[in-house]
Amino acid sequence: MNIYELDTPAVVIDLDVLEKNIEDMAALCRELGITLRGHTKSHKSPEIAKMQVAAGSKGIVCQKLGEAENMARAGLDDILITYNIVGRQKVRRLTELARYRRITVTVDSFAIASGISEQAKLDRVTIGILVEIDTGGKRTGVQSPAAAEELGKQVQTLPGLELRGLMTYPSRVSSKPIIEDVVGRFKKASLSLDIISGGGTGEEWESKELGFTEHRSGSYVYEGLSRIQGSSGNEGLSAERCPLRVITTVVSVPTADRLIIDGGMKTFRLFPSMPYGLILEDPRIKFSGMSVEHGHVDTSESNRKYIVGDKLTVIPTYQEGVTNLHDEIVWARNDQVYRVLRNHGRGKVK
Amino acid sequence: MNIYELDTPAVVIDLDVLEKNIEDMAALCRELGITLRGHTKSHKSPEIAKMQVAAGSKGIVCQKLGEAENMARAGLDDILITYNIVGRQKVRRLTELARYRRITVTVDSFAIASGISEQAKLDRVTIGILVEIDTGGKRTGVQSPAAAEELGKQVQTLPGLELRGLMTYPSRVSSKPIIEDVVGRFKKASLSLDIISGGGTGEEWESKELGFTEHRSGSYVYEGLSRIQGSSGNEGLSAERCPLRVITTVVSVPTADRLIIDGGMKTFRLFPSMPYGLILEDPRIKFSGMSVEHGHVDTSESNRKYIVGDKLTVIPTYQEGVTNLHDEIVWARNDQVYRVLRNHGRGKVK
Repeated sequence: MNIYELDTPAVVIDLDVLEKNIEDMAALCRELGITLRGHTKSHKSPEIAKMQVAAGSKGIVCQKLGEAENMARAGLDDILITYNIVGRQKVRRLTELARYRRITVTVDSFAIASGISEQAKLDRVTIGILVEIDTGGKRTGVQSPAAAEELGKQVQTLPGLELRGLMTYPSRVSSKPIIEDVVGRFKKASLSLDIISGGGTGEEWESKELGFTEHRSGSYVYEGLSRIQGSSGNEGLSAERCPLRVITTVVSVPTADRLIIDGGMKTFRLFPSMPYGLILEDPRIKFSGMSVEHGHVDTSESNRKYIVGDKLTVIPTYQEGVTNLHDEIVWARNDQVYRVLRNHGRGKVK
Repeated sequence: MNIYELDTPAVVIDLDVLEKNIEDMAALCRELGITLRGHTKSHKSPEIAKMQVAAGSKGIVCQKLGEAENMARAGLDDILITYNIVGRQKVRRLTELARYRRITVTVDSFAIASGISEQAKLDRVTIGILVEIDTGGKRTGVQSPAAAEELGKQVQTLPGLELRGLMTYPSRVSSKPIIEDVVGRFKKASLSLDIISGGGTGEEWESKELGFTEHRSGSYVYEGLSRIQGSSGNEGLSAERCPLRVITTVVSVPTADRLIIDGGMKTFRLFPSMPYGLILEDPRIKFSGMSVEHGHVDTSESNRKYIVGDKLTVIPTYQEGVTNLHDEIVWARNDQVYRVLRNHGRGKVK
C-alpha cells in the first residue's frame, strides 16, 4: 500500500532515513571513541531502540519508569533511567523491573537513594546508581562536587544499591573544572566511576573532551539536521535527514490564498514558534496558524491550485512531540507501507 | 483511596466541580432560551457527554470522526461532527456510524458533499448536512451567503443527504448582516433551517441574539473561569471552577529556591504562554519553566520548605491539552477516588 492511501493524519517514518541517522550517530561515536547510549525518549519505540543497540549503542536510556517497563517487556536490557524515582508505587515497579533487567537510575539526594534502597533490600534486587551532578543545566542534580562525593559515599552504605558512577546533563566543556573536581573526589574516596554519563545530541565530542565513559543521544534518530542547523525556521529542517512525516489531507479550500488540512494542535502539538513544520510538496506554501484540529495554510505565494482531497506531507518542527500524540506509527520504504506499529510507549509519563 | 496516594503525575477530575459546571451551563442556556449542544472535544469522555445530555444538552458535537465513533459506541446519539469528512476511508466510517446513530456533518464545498453522498447512497443511509458559512473565523466555511445558498441547493439534489440547515463558528453579533442574508436566502429557496448552529463557550447569548436554534459549547466543562476572566495569567484560573487537576510529586529540591516536579511538557503540554498552571498548595510558588518530563518551580517567594515526595496539585492553564495526553483519568469526590476511567477518546485525530 502506498503511504498516500493511508487514512490521515498519518505519522510515517521513512526507514531509509531512520537507518541512516542511526548508523551515522553510531559511526560518529565510534570515530570519537566514546560509547553511545541511545536515548529512547524521542521515539519511545522498542523496535527503534533495538536498531540503536544493533548499530552499537550500549544499552539504552529512558526518561520515565513507564518507558523503561515498555522497553524491558519488549526485550531491551541494560536500561538507564535518568530520573529520580520517588514514592512507594514507583520504587516497587523499579525493583520489579530489576528482577529481570540490568537497571541503573540516577539520584540527586539521600532521600531518593534511601527510598530505592529500602525496597531493593526487601525485594533482594540490586539497582545500579549514578549520582547526578548539576553542571549548569539548573534542573535536577546535586549542586557541588562535595555534595556529589557525600551522596556517593551514602549510596555505598545503602543495601540493595550499587554505585556505578556519575551523570550530568547536558555535556558542556565549560563545566570541566567541576567535572575534574568531582572525578578527583570520587577517585580519592575509591567511589565507583564505571560510568560517567554525559548527554545531549550534538554534544558527543564534549562528553569525549570531558573524559566521560558514555554519551546519551536520542533526538538524532528523528530530528536530523534541525539540531545542527537550528530549529527556529525552515532552514533547520532538511527533508533528507528527517524520517518522520505527517501525511495530511486538504479538507477545505475556502479562498484562493488559504487551505485547511486535517491536522492541527492535536496532530502536531502546539509548538511555540512558527513555522510549525515544512510542507514538502510545495515550499511556497506555509502554515499561518493552527487550531485544535485544523492546520491553516497560506497559499498566496503558490501558483498551484489545491483541491479538497489533496495530500500534503509535513515535516514537523518538533518531531518528538508528534510521536507522543499518536497511537499508530507507520514504517515505510520508498513510500510503500512496510509495517504498522502500535505506539505503546506514548504517554508513559508515570 | 485518597487522591494523594495515586502514582503521579495523575489527572484527577473533581466531580462536584464538574457537575456544577455542567449544570450551570445548562441553566444559562435554559434562561437564554437557546438549545445547548454540548461539545465533547475538550473532555473526549462519553461518561461526561452523558452528563451533559442528562443536564439538557441536545445530542453532542464532536470535532473528529474518531471521537464520534468513540461516543457512538458508548451509547451517545444525535451526533454533530463539525468537520469536513474527506476521503474514501472516512466516508465509509461515516456511513457505518449512520447505520445506528443520527449523524449530522458540516460541509463547505460540493466536493465534500458529493463524496459523502456517493457512499451514503451505496450504503443506503442518510447523513444530515449543515452548510458551514465563514462569518469571519477564517478557518473553514463558504465565503458568502450566495455560496451557502448554492451549496444548500446542491446538497438537496444529492442522494443520501438530508439538508438540515446552517452552521458557523464562532458566534459573533457583528456577523448579523451575513446571517440575515443567508437565512433570508435559505427561506426564499425553501432550504431547511431546522438547525442553525452557533458555537463558542461564553458566546451563548450571541447565538441567541443571532436567532440561532442551537449553540455548541464545550470548554466550560473543564476550563471554568479561565474563559470568562481571560487565561493569560493566574487571574483567569479559579480553583473553584476548574475540576481538572494534575497531582505531581516533588522529585528534586536542588536549591533553596528551586524544586522539580515529575510533570513536564508531556504531562501538561507545552503551552505557549506562562504561567503553565496554578499550584494550589502555595500561591507563592510559580512555574519557571518546563522540560520534557520535568516541571521547574521557583520557590524563592515562599517560606515553606519542600522535600522530595511532597505532592503538588496543578490546575493547568490549558486543560483540554492535558486530557489529550493521558491514558487514565481519575474521578474524585472530596479528594477520594471515585472511579478510574480509561481515556479512550484521547488522540482520536482521524
